[in-house]
Amino acid sequence: MSRAETLSPGLIVPPPVAHPRTISIFGATGSVGTSTLDLIRLNPSHYRIVALTAHSDAAGLARLAREFGAQVAVIGDPAQHQTLADALEGCATQAWSGPQALLDAADLDADWTMAAIVGCAGLAPIMRSLLRGRSVALANKEALVSSGALMIEAARSSGATLLPVDSEHNAIFQCLAGASYDQVQSITLTASGGPFRTWTLDQMRAAGPAQAVAHPNWSMGAKISVDSATMFNKGLELIEAYHLFPVGLDAIRILVHPQSVIHSMVEYRDRSTLAQLGAPDMRIPIASALAWPDRIATNCAPLDLATIGQLTFEPLDDKRFPGPGICRQAIAAGGAAPAILNAANEIAVAAFLREEIGFLDIAAIVSTVLAGYTPAEPQCLQDVLAIDKDARVHAAAAVRTRN
Amino acid sequence: MSRAETLSPGLIVPPPVAHPRTISIFGATGSVGTSTLDLIRLNPSHYRIVALTAHSDAAGLARLAREFGAQVAVIGDPAQHQTLADALEGCATQAWSGPQALLDAADLDADWTMAAIVGCAGLAPIMRSLLRGRSVALANKEALVSSGALMIEAARSSGATLLPVDSEHNAIFQCLAGASYDQVQSITLTASGGPFRTWTLDQMRAAGPAQAVAHPNWSMGAKISVDSATMFNKGLELIEAYHLFPVGLDAIRILVHPQSVIHSMVEYRDRSTLAQLGAPDMRIPIASALAWPDRIATNCAPLDLATIGQLTFEPLDDKRFPGPGICRQAIAAGGAAPAILNAANEIAVAAFLREEIGFLDIAAIVSTVLAGYTPAEPQCLQDVLAIDKDARVHAAAAVRTRN
Repeated sequence: MSRAETLSPGLIVPPPVAHPRTISIFGATGSVGTSTLDLIRLNPSHYRIVALTAHSDAAGLARLAREFGAQVAVIGDPAQHQTLADALEGCATQAWSGPQALLDAADLDADWTMAAIVGCAGLAPIMRSLLRGRSVALANKEALVSSGALMIEAARSSGATLLPVDSEHNAIFQCLAGASYDQVQSITLTASGGPFRTWTLDQMRAAGPAQAVAHPNWSMGAKISVDSATMFNKGLELIEAYHLFPVGLDAIRILVHPQSVIHSMVEYRDRSTLAQLGAPDMRIPIASALAWPDRIATNCAPLDLATIGQLTFEPLDDKRFPGPGICRQAIAAGGAAPAILNAANEIAVAAFLREEIGFLDIAAIVSTVLAGYTPAEPQCLQDVLAIDKDARVHAAAAVRTRN
Repeated sequence: MSRAETLSPGLIVPPPVAHPRTISIFGATGSVGTSTLDLIRLNPSHYRIVALTAHSDAAGLARLAREFGAQVAVIGDPAQHQTLADALEGCATQAWSGPQALLDAADLDADWTMAAIVGCAGLAPIMRSLLRGRSVALANKEALVSSGALMIEAARSSGATLLPVDSEHNAIFQCLAGASYDQVQSITLTASGGPFRTWTLDQMRAAGPAQAVAHPNWSMGAKISVDSATMFNKGLELIEAYHLFPVGLDAIRILVHPQSVIHSMVEYRDRSTLAQLGAPDMRIPIASALAWPDRIATNCAPLDLATIGQLTFEPLDDKRFPGPGICRQAIAAGGAAPAILNAANEIAVAAFLREEIGFLDIAAIVSTVLAGYTPAEPQCLQDVLAIDKDARVHAAAAVRTRN
């Protein structure tokens, strides 16, 4: 079976939707996890919860486990085990804890798994879910950015389905419905352009954290807001798209679209382009992944284009925004490069938020770290974690040189 | 089998694409017919021509029949029979002529039929193709505007597939790929707004044919250009969409979008909207229908949104443009109303082009004729043709009253 056949909804008939669909949510107390549970609350008869996990919010996790009648609640931090067990007293939900329990939870049968644990802590449970052949809704970024080749290989070997949750990749997934990759001419990731879209290089050089975290369209955390300002976010999405949609790197483009109404597009070889549009509400792509290939009602606002009035588009200026180009080079280099890039960017953004370096230093540091050394290609997740750790040391050194 | 199952690509796997696909083209020498043949020229190994038909251009038809090795060439006008036969001398193509020969051509086995005969002359061959259970690419407007209920019933009874070729309906068809109608919240037909989009009622009252035929985005004939100026074209498309996509009249909307880049949209119940975009080139929707569910390469220009720069949207002003509202009322009235509306509009537009009535009289005449009488619901195509003929008499009388 080709990679295209494994990952695309394609012309292969998707499996019939089981009712109720059994669901596990890794990262249930975070933003994506709670949005997913909000949607399940709206459509309670469609879903039954198997496992819910959280990093350290035992009380919040127990509350959700009781409400949804989860079979298992897993707290990642073993120190919270007793708090969780106490909070679940008298309830049928089992209390599990620690990293191994996260893997055990991935072993439990579930029709659909939400992978919303943030950062490298999410990698091992995702890999386990993929190896078990699950349908995995992917909200964690590192899985494809740092470990894309390994994750895709795991999905391919087991027949697992990856359902992207990021608004751009979910848009592409929707626009590909019914298509095979040889029908695709190009894929266009849209980008808001971030808060510095119209700024000069000199203005950007002087920009501080307060200006960089002011994202025009989406409400987000500080790190991802800075990624939007540097447009490294779009470069990281380029890496993810490269793994999810095997059309070749040259066929994946970036288009600046400040209103963020068109979330991404697929151009077919006959020159028809399909686009997915919607209000900037994460529940819309989550709902799409949750119900796929069916659709569920949401209480999200409808898109009102007559009121919005206009959508604008402009090319990406790679002089002012070198991030996406650096990501493109990392994809071409392959091996450890994307994992190094991701780790170096995290360290540089953190240093920028502490005001130790300037805004333009972020891309410079990522480039320096990438050019500085070439570790062997990762063969397993442990290799990825080692590369990540090592790249952070290199990046911290580069930060010290700059400030 | 429900109507949705018959007409939507849906989750039902489309039939495998036969190679080469056998094709008949009704109206081969017209604009849609020649565009279809242009696409077949680009992908010759994919297609084999069964029948080509033309109204009266025997020389042009014979040339195409020779080039494509058609089995049969049919000339609608019996007076051209000998010209066609002479032009096909020494070639394996059979020369047929007359209205019955058009039906006989529809009886010939073909995987895919292009219905591009203009006007009521196209109805009988389309009905025959639908009753034979063919995949029919529909470019003729009257089939669904005047005879929608009959055509859909024929398609339903035989399991025929209707593939819309009009850019708006083709866009909706593409955006529905993989979906069932209960997943759809609404359908939005986009409208350029025509040459009078920004004109006042007083300006429109004084407008003559030269101003009305200046369409901003598409190169079209005089009648359809005036329909674009009155926006009756969008109302007629509303009638077609109502029959093609059974989501209910209230769920089909019109949005003015002057750039005509988004050809139409489908909003799903989860508030995801899918849109189809492309350059204003009829070959793109034709290619989509021709290859469906596959895609073929075209030599159409790619869409370059960064160069286009902006897309704008505004609500339809039904005070200045009453046409779509009149069409909506005709759909609600049902029975003979849409056929009467279509005939009355044709007569009124012709009178306007002859400068016998003013621009605003077009809608007034259509309304008057519709309100004037209520014939019985058509039970067969003969009924539709009789209604059409009768409505033209009523409309001509209304024109005489106005001028």
